[in-house]
Amino acid sequence: MEDDRDTDKKTDGKRISLSVVRRLPRYYRYLGELLDSGIKRISSKDLSERMRVTASQIRQDLNNFGCFGQQGYGYNVELLYGAIKNLLGLDRSYSLIIVGGGSIGRSLANYKNFARRGFIFKAIFDVDPALIGGVIGGVPVYSVDEMEGYIDANHIDAAVLALPKESAPEITERLAERGIKGIWNFSHMDLTAPEGVKMENVHLTDSLMTLSYWLNSDK
Amino acid sequence: MEDDRDTDKKTDGKRISLSVVRRLPRYYRYLGELLDSGIKRISSKDLSERMRVTASQIRQDLNNFGCFGQQGYGYNVELLYGAIKNLLGLDRSYSLIIVGGGSIGRSLANYKNFARRGFIFKAIFDVDPALIGGVIGGVPVYSVDEMEGYIDANHIDAAVLALPKESAPEITERLAERGIKGIWNFSHMDLTAPEGVKMENVHLTDSLMTLSYWLNSDK
Repeated sequence: MEDDRDTDKKTDGKRISLSVVRRLPRYYRYLGELLDSGIKRISSKDLSERMRVTASQIRQDLNNFGCFGQQGYGYNVELLYGAIKNLLGLDRSYSLIIVGGGSIGRSLANYKNFARRGFIFKAIFDVDPALIGGVIGGVPVYSVDEMEGYIDANHIDAAVLALPKESAPEITERLAERGIKGIWNFSHMDLTAPEGVKMENVHLTDSLMTLSYWLNSDK
Repeated sequence: MEDDRDTDKKTDGKRISLSVVRRLPRYYRYLGELLDSGIKRISSKDLSERMRVTASQIRQDLNNFGCFGQQGYGYNVELLYGAIKNLLGLDRSYSLIIVGGGSIGRSLANYKNFARRGFIFKAIFDVDPALIGGVIGGVPVYSVDEMEGYIDANHIDAAVLALPKESAPEITERLAERGIKGIWNFSHMDLTAPEGVKMENVHLTDSLMTLSYWLNSDK
């Protein structure tokens, strides 16, 4: 999951670097596991051993967004978890549309874990008459011609691109014109976000190729 | 798609750093697009503009695995593409099993692009009697009790973990004991690879959370 952004983002008057932002979900995951196991506080040293990053990086990262551990006490797991949840914008839910009802679009619509975390798929858009008018994983499928009208009539936070790379740039432009601010891109292509749009590129095949590299690297 | 490896790997007597390995699939993708558009040679400067990395990084990366551009000519796209394909181990096919027939396992089995690139799903293993004996996306589903026997009887290169994180460590151990050398991990957990096993962790939810961070970062 890589993208081309190298700029910093401003949060609470501080600038958080892209690499720190990328580590936030991981902190959130590990802190959630600690909470689940009833652990109430943790030192940067213990957290560093679990997460396999240095304790000094953890202190630096967490200082970045105003979470300070107490000397001799460590971090309050619940407070830290809540702060990162907030920072990640997970204290609310998001309405998403999926463009493309092929195997990736279907999978995402059928995968219930995203909804549990507040990411709700509202509609799927496709060009295939066999899909239009149907329902996938409880999500209605409309013609892509209706996309703009749907966005205008409903509050949509972000769009998922689950379509062939050939159509991805055009759809991206159309989404940006309707005011969509975030795109989760599964098309097999790095897309450059139009002005004002945040793009998160996912490349499953890249990950699989990395695995095949490792499988061959000892030979 | 992140993991905890920070060691270097040896290839052709040279050590390639993890960050270079992670960039290989991206080079492969861009070079494939160039080939598709009939472009036969490219300078590091032009490639750098397309890929949005510096030309000097491109030269450094490619030198790393013995691909040298010619002064005043640039890189031969086809040769470079072939060299990276080789390095990624994409000149052969791989047999994989999927552990977990839930929505992620189903999606992967139904997604035909992986097979096109030589990654063939041979069997799915699950604990659910309703799934066992059935077929998903053309792939037969067996009981997870039969997993070890299946691996012993068939040549399997790698396994996909598409199961709840609670079961992931135990299954990983069982796969490692049967000699599986590569694991593509979709469970919502960073897994540490046992000795001799390569682990590629995929975290779709982390990527989605990064997107929601961006959606909120301007406020």
